[in-house]
Amino acid sequence: MQLGVCYYPEHWPEALWADDAARMAAIGIRVVRIAEFAWSRIEPEPGRFDWAWLDRAVQTLHAAGLGIVMCTPTATPPKWLVDAHPDILAHGLDGRVRGFGSRRHSCFSSRSWRAESRRISTAVAERYGQHPAVVAWQTDNEYGCHDTVLSTSPDARAAFRRWLEKRYGSVAALNRAWGTVFWSQEYRSFDEVDLPVGTVTEANPSHRLDWRRFASDEVAAFNREQVQILRRHSPGRPVSHNFMGFFTGFDHHDVAADLDIATWDSYPLGFTQDFFFSPQEKVRWARTGHPDIPAFHHDLYRGMCAGGRWWVMEQQPGPVNWARWNTAPADGMVRAWTWQACAHGAEVVSYFRWRQAPFGQEQMHTGLLRPDSVTAPGGHEAAQVGRELQALGPALTDAPLPQPAVALVLDYPSLWMAQIQPQGADYDPVELCFRVYSALRALGLDVDIVGPHAALGRYAMIVLPAQLHAADDLVQRLAQSAAQLVLGPRAGAKTVDLQWPADGPPGALADLAGARVGRVESLPPGLTETLTWDDGRQASASRWRDHLEPTGEQTVTVARHADGSPAVLRHGRVHTVAGWLDEAGWQTVLGDAARAAGLRPQTLPEGLRISRRGALTFAVNFTDQPLSWRPAADDSAPDAPPPERLLGEEQVAPQGVTIWRT
Amino acid sequence: MQLGVCYYPEHWPEALWADDAARMAAIGIRVVRIAEFAWSRIEPEPGRFDWAWLDRAVQTLHAAGLGIVMCTPTATPPKWLVDAHPDILAHGLDGRVRGFGSRRHSCFSSRSWRAESRRISTAVAERYGQHPAVVAWQTDNEYGCHDTVLSTSPDARAAFRRWLEKRYGSVAALNRAWGTVFWSQEYRSFDEVDLPVGTVTEANPSHRLDWRRFASDEVAAFNREQVQILRRHSPGRPVSHNFMGFFTGFDHHDVAADLDIATWDSYPLGFTQDFFFSPQEKVRWARTGHPDIPAFHHDLYRGMCAGGRWWVMEQQPGPVNWARWNTAPADGMVRAWTWQACAHGAEVVSYFRWRQAPFGQEQMHTGLLRPDSVTAPGGHEAAQVGRELQALGPALTDAPLPQPAVALVLDYPSLWMAQIQPQGADYDPVELCFRVYSALRALGLDVDIVGPHAALGRYAMIVLPAQLHAADDLVQRLAQSAAQLVLGPRAGAKTVDLQWPADGPPGALADLAGARVGRVESLPPGLTETLTWDDGRQASASRWRDHLEPTGEQTVTVARHADGSPAVLRHGRVHTVAGWLDEAGWQTVLGDAARAAGLRPQTLPEGLRISRRGALTFAVNFTDQPLSWRPAADDSAPDAPPPERLLGEEQVAPQGVTIWRT
Amino acid sequence: MQLGVCYYPEHWPEALWADDAARMAAIGIRVVRIAEFAWSRIEPEPGRFDWAWLDRAVQTLHAAGLGIVMCTPTATPPKWLVDAHPDILAHGLDGRVRGFGSRRHSCFSSRSWRAESRRISTAVAERYGQHPAVVAWQTDNEYGCHDTVLSTSPDARAAFRRWLEKRYGSVAALNRAWGTVFWSQEYRSFDEVDLPVGTVTEANPSHRLDWRRFASDEVAAFNREQVQILRRHSPGRPVSHNFMGFFTGFDHHDVAADLDIATWDSYPLGFTQDFFFSPQEKVRWARTGHPDIPAFHHDLYRGMCAGGRWWVMEQQPGPVNWARWNTAPADGMVRAWTWQACAHGAEVVSYFRWRQAPFGQEQMHTGLLRPDSVTAPGGHEAAQVGRELQALGPALTDAPLPQPAVALVLDYPSLWMAQIQPQGADYDPVELCFRVYSALRALGLDVDIVGPHAALGRYAMIVLPAQLHAADDLVQRLAQSAAQLVLGPRAGAKTVDLQWPADGPPGALADLAGARVGRVESLPPGLTETLTWDDGRQASASRWRDHLEPTGEQTVTVARHADGSPAVLRHGRVHTVAGWLDEAGWQTVLGDAARAAGLRPQTLPEGLRISRRGALTFAVNFTDQPLSWRPAADDSAPDAPPPERLLGEEQVAPQGVTIWRT
Repeated sequence: MQLGVCYYPEHWPEALWADDAARMAAIGIRVVRIAEFAWSRIEPEPGRFDWAWLDRAVQTLHAAGLGIVMCTPTATPPKWLVDAHPDILAHGLDGRVRGFGSRRHSCFSSRSWRAESRRISTAVAERYGQHPAVVAWQTDNEYGCHDTVLSTSPDARAAFRRWLEKRYGSVAALNRAWGTVFWSQEYRSFDEVDLPVGTVTEANPSHRLDWRRFASDEVAAFNREQVQILRRHSPGRPVSHNFMGFFTGFDHHDVAADLDIATWDSYPLGFTQDFFFSPQEKVRWARTGHPDIPAFHHDLYRGMCAGGRWWVMEQQPGPVNWARWNTAPADGMVRAWTWQACAHGAEVVSYFRWRQAPFGQEQMHTGLLRPDSVTAPGGHEAAQVGRELQALGPALTDAPLPQPAVALVLDYPSLWMAQIQPQGADYDPVELCFRVYSALRALGLDVDIVGPHAALGRYAMIVLPAQLHAADDLVQRLAQSAAQLVLGPRAGAKTVDLQWPADGPPGALADLAGARVGRVESLPPGLTETLTWDDGRQASASRWRDHLEPTGEQTVTVARHADGSPAVLRHGRVHTVAGWLDEAGWQTVLGDAARAAGLRPQTLPEGLRISRRGALTFAVNFTDQPLSWRPAADDSAPDAPPPERLLGEEQVAPQGVTIWRT
Repeated sequence: MQLGVCYYPEHWPEALWADDAARMAAIGIRVVRIAEFAWSRIEPEPGRFDWAWLDRAVQTLHAAGLGIVMCTPTATPPKWLVDAHPDILAHGLDGRVRGFGSRRHSCFSSRSWRAESRRISTAVAERYGQHPAVVAWQTDNEYGCHDTVLSTSPDARAAFRRWLEKRYGSVAALNRAWGTVFWSQEYRSFDEVDLPVGTVTEANPSHRLDWRRFASDEVAAFNREQVQILRRHSPGRPVSHNFMGFFTGFDHHDVAADLDIATWDSYPLGFTQDFFFSPQEKVRWARTGHPDIPAFHHDLYRGMCAGGRWWVMEQQPGPVNWARWNTAPADGMVRAWTWQACAHGAEVVSYFRWRQAPFGQEQMHTGLLRPDSVTAPGGHEAAQVGRELQALGPALTDAPLPQPAVALVLDYPSLWMAQIQPQGADYDPVELCFRVYSALRALGLDVDIVGPHAALGRYAMIVLPAQLHAADDLVQRLAQSAAQLVLGPRAGAKTVDLQWPADGPPGALADLAGARVGRVESLPPGLTETLTWDDGRQASASRWRDHLEPTGEQTVTVARHADGSPAVLRHGRVHTVAGWLDEAGWQTVLGDAARAAGLRPQTLPEGLRISRRGALTFAVNFTDQPLSWRPAADDSAPDAPPPERLLGEEQVAPQGVTIWRT
Repeated sequence: MQLGVCYYPEHWPEALWADDAARMAAIGIRVVRIAEFAWSRIEPEPGRFDWAWLDRAVQTLHAAGLGIVMCTPTATPPKWLVDAHPDILAHGLDGRVRGFGSRRHSCFSSRSWRAESRRISTAVAERYGQHPAVVAWQTDNEYGCHDTVLSTSPDARAAFRRWLEKRYGSVAALNRAWGTVFWSQEYRSFDEVDLPVGTVTEANPSHRLDWRRFASDEVAAFNREQVQILRRHSPGRPVSHNFMGFFTGFDHHDVAADLDIATWDSYPLGFTQDFFFSPQEKVRWARTGHPDIPAFHHDLYRGMCAGGRWWVMEQQPGPVNWARWNTAPADGMVRAWTWQACAHGAEVVSYFRWRQAPFGQEQMHTGLLRPDSVTAPGGHEAAQVGRELQALGPALTDAPLPQPAVALVLDYPSLWMAQIQPQGADYDPVELCFRVYSALRALGLDVDIVGPHAALGRYAMIVLPAQLHAADDLVQRLAQSAAQLVLGPRAGAKTVDLQWPADGPPGALADLAGARVGRVESLPPGLTETLTWDDGRQASASRWRDHLEPTGEQTVTVARHADGSPAVLRHGRVHTVAGWLDEAGWQTVLGDAARAAGLRPQTLPEGLRISRRGALTFAVNFTDQPLSWRPAADDSAPDAPPPERLLGEEQVAPQGVTIWRT
């Protein structure tokens, strides 16, 4: 694993550049990402390029031995460009044209925008495609940030109509797929179809789903154009994009299919404050972040690109500026997050940013350095990791990627279906995937998060927390698998068109589950169901309840609601869960399935997480107390030597990490 | 009472229709509502009508012995229509044109829309007006659903100006009625008057009230046009419209004046989740609905049409899709709700819908059948009612309508006044009417909910929970009545123009009340007043406080606030209440008034409600425990035989019903 | 001190005017404000003036011996005017044109509006500028009410560009000041700059700050135009404007610089319900208002105009109509508020309004009279004050203004900076100023609230709760002062352009503080820090934490967080606070500083406040229990006579006031 950093030479006097580069190299940084927001400096006026400053910046970094991740600057089209082509500007869900003055104000469907993006990307690729310092590329920056995937511009509407025409061939097919006979929504031509906005009440769900599919495809197409330009002008250098956390605006698997490396931007504290965590969790994890936020995304993005290449492109170095509350990391957390990324197989962990900018929207976002160039706490911790990496050497760089026995399937279109039809106001499928993932991790299990098209053959256990639609192809691979399967509530509840399946939920999963769902209900806050297992274990469920009906004698009811109805079914190796379980409930179901799969779930100390990578085992402690844990002896090799501690204390230190080699 | 169902033949293969009809008939269904959303199938292209399928559907139902409620399909104008006449589309309160893609996107004031509505309604009426299967008509569907009464379109503005001109004659009269001298709002002509939207702070309340009056009149005029067409082409068949629950967007008494039958759409579970109930109530009644939601509306809509004809046009059959949380009814509730409607005098209870649609916005809304045609739990309960109805026979169908001794006056313009000037953020006049109604019902009293123009002579007790404006005519009828009167807070607080009355509240009710209101205040959450009666009974009040001043020695203070000031006054037979009482407080006030009226209030078991209809007494149990209750012996006829139990257990079963004949 | 009242003769039959005037005079009222909303009556049609009614009204009041505060009527441009000049209408933040039908719908930047405002103001000034009854003027009414300072109209955009051009000279300077290199926001000309609205995510903070500065300057320029007209036509009569409570839409010090008298509109109960108070505080102070709301503004507005002239122009007389909940004042509070204003130096307390209007938006806003002319409770209390004022005579009118030893600096641009970049969702700088002020008042200290340009030489203690930017000039005056200084969190955290200062916070205050801020964080609700002083005193902090670093041995850590880090530093006479303290914390810090300043902080009974004005000491009791307090004996004059009680009881009565002369 290497360390990296995000750097904005255009923000700083040129006199600082050489010293910056030297300090980066000195603390162990090896790669530097630049230029993703620099369009107005690269092309200050229409058609007039100013490469000189960027050439010098690249040269300065190169001279210090640093590799460069060069970016296309398309996240921030400059003012002169949008004034020349006003159709570049996206339109919001309220129909209003977006204003200039922040970022991501362009519409992915704008014809002008596509042409201008190709033009600037080609210019950058031509200039630096062969530069020896350039070790990788990044397309654009954080596609979809600030909810910018959907646009209601005229170009977007026109493109949507053409997309529908291509998908359905005939408008009759569209009418069938959307069920437009409902409420007299029938269309006579594709040109009658509008975007599903501004309606009196919710628009047709299939219409909405197709809009999201279309918009996702537009992102993928935009990215593909950039990748093709970069591959043409910079062959042999990997192309990446930096994805975001808990973001589902487009199908990341589709975009990643065109990339060599998936990267993501890891802000554990900001995500803890801004997402679905309870007020109690927001306080408890205020200065460490919820332990599973980084891991969830590490495992998700490791599953994106062929070969599992992934980086953390932006690592939180201290307080940020954009969350509702912006806490400071506890001492040690910047280092701990870095090692946690290593434990999950990161090639690079790149801090955002080198030096806190004293101006603009992110002036309260810290960096490794303060604006006055004094090293900030995060900078000291990064330097410590740099020293440790150098000391540990090949033991780490040679370690293979994690090879978990457990797969969790995360399917973007299924998430969209649940977001479009939550049916209960607090049914958030992303949270559900996270909670299930967290329960697996609390059991000490390593997890791959994979898409619905992933090969599943090698897993001993496969969990589908929110698989609203299961395509035949996926069902077939699940059926052919020998793994223990765990199906969450709403599994198979929808067809590909977001309709109720002909035989009802779980649709094509019915044979595997050995069950049907008679009806479903969502439960208001405070309405909880008590579940009881045959052996007396109990847990509770809320938010959702599938009324499960076993369809044969092979189906065993392993847990029941208070009224005796099934809460968890087992049909051979398939475990079907009726509701949104609490933490204990998920651990019970998943622990049982793991044991049936031959795995060894364990009860980790609260706030400790473990990860395995080849012969290495990493333990990270997210609490402020030392915690006792060590790798179990290998029963199959009783004479094996005890684990060797490569880093850290025998008791895992507060906000610390310990690494063993077994 | 008959059973009915809502059916959408256009949603299903024609091959299913005959079997559907046979199954309907088999479970006791007698009437079927169709076609209210079928415009795009009836007229798939401008001017080209396709009657064939609908003819066959009608014939199929007719052949099975089912009566048909035919609808005008105006709730869902098709895409080609709004494309041809864009002025049909309503404009929202934000000024934006509404989009196509859901329903109710038309503006009631659009001239094009009125003409097109007449055209399609005439076509349907001509086609089926004389068909022997058609037993009744429904105009449109749920006027105002999704807050669609108000539109800010140019046509609406123009129509509003003409409406004002007609109401006021001169702009000087308008200026006086609105008090436009306040803040220099004076107008010099009707054409200077805009719609009261987009203002920097709240618009003139009288202006807002007149806009609501105008918009209500537009709904009534629209409906009247449809009724006239139907009466012309289908004489002798009753015309109905299906109203909604807790909806006050227009004056239902005005619309109902043109109808033969008032129907409403009863979704007890959805209403419990989406309206003003506390989080605790939402959990407690999650699977039964609050007991008084159906009854409140049954009694309201029984008071709409001459002769008291009313139906439940849509009865919740299971979980719905549109509430924030969508729970499943407890076993027995679909049957219990049906019998509860019978107890209140319904002619028909019609389930919505026959079979759950697998597509479109309501695909998660259950029906009597699942999408795969398997009978859903609600279908089994409907069939049970069908069998019970057949078994009970004439005892029920001969029973006269309820004849309550208690009237609760619900006046839409008064509700609008309170909504426009709540004065306290939680002063919801609809909730107040409901809470007062609920207290009456908890005392075992039957209630008529009547409009302000209703004949009041036969009531022993009249309750006006939220009568902000009392017209002279109403005051006169109250004065002539011998009933015990109960006036809620804010009674008589406004003139017809939404001004403060010359002598202050309670305005024209002052003589009856024997009191004046010195000043009023609204109270923030947590500020409660303790009330004490002379005999030591206590209760509490919140949200509102009228500072009552007795105006003569005839006025007795029967309950006081902690500071000694009057909380409840009695002036002869008139009881005046200063605040928003808690449940105990309302039961105390209403119980005292009922006893003074010669009625016999009782304390029912919690969660049990009783209703009387001629010699029949119905008890419905909304809890999951059996409850003991039976009709009291008749003191005036000591030798009368004991009540005969027609249905149900001696102890009213959980979620069950018992019917006695006395 | 004199009493006044706001009166709207245009609302009432002329027959009532003489009696109204007589009753006003009889209860001790001396000045009457009129005509601020009367444009449509003064100029009912374009160019046609109707002065007759207003002449008669003025004459009637004059004849009764009442002085008149005449107003320019620009808060309510009439319909014919905005129809003739649609560009007068402001545009909202959503870009939509504001509607007519309430008030303040004009755009300060509209050229037409400026011209029309000058025209009508000149007409009024010419008419009444020399009238003997006119004792003062008011410009417009409540600038900015209903958030009307910012407008997005084309005129506003054009004026903003010119304002920027004037401020920066070159667009390069603007680019530097805003840091537009960030996110490629660079501009090539001033005409490329838009208003910072409609962006995908937050616009550039410096851009936003300049928009607020510009809009504030537009208000000041508008006011200045009016003042110049009034001074020209009515020389020698003071000009005032009535400011609002807790309002920061423009820099009040800038507007007040052109005025002779600052007035404000005091609604203690409405402010308690509508601002930042906790639910518990909203209940506790529901009928008295938080004790420090009036005082905070009295002390703020006394600091506005040269010579400290200030009035309460609108004093709450009973329940109002515009708060979320509108409670009634406890008996005595209208009188107590009036005396509290006297205690802080008010020249006039003017009740709003004489008689409750029965129509229009404020028909639920009470007055001294009810609509039926019966005296309301507030009227009786006003009359009592009138009698008391007459009885007390010169003792009060001769009393000098308060001369507090403590100054609290309130700087509007600093507040804007914190509002633009709160960094934590609950970081409200206005609340912080208020909480600090409240702690000072609970210690029995008198306070001047001053702007950043005020002379500071005479203060023994200066508190800067939210001084995000400290200009060199202010820093210099602080350095030259001998006062104890208390710096709140975020002091000096921003440059004038809303950038991070070169050496980080506290910027130019670093030498005074003897400290630097290493990093900052905001804390989510529930995350509190415990602070411990060396002597064991404890308090807690929340919301914010500056990580303070002492920069020399002269800097003493006087309180620490649980982790040992500094929470309060002292560097000589400068006290620096890291966080948002609780009430106990602020009292500790401020009490220590006050003692170091030679002041005598005391612990007042809860709910009692004291104020000194020359030899007079006022105590106001905001509770419903009598409270014991009396002025301390003067140690320096042991033989001085005991304080003489001029008004009130020895024990301060519930909702009462006691005045002593020492």
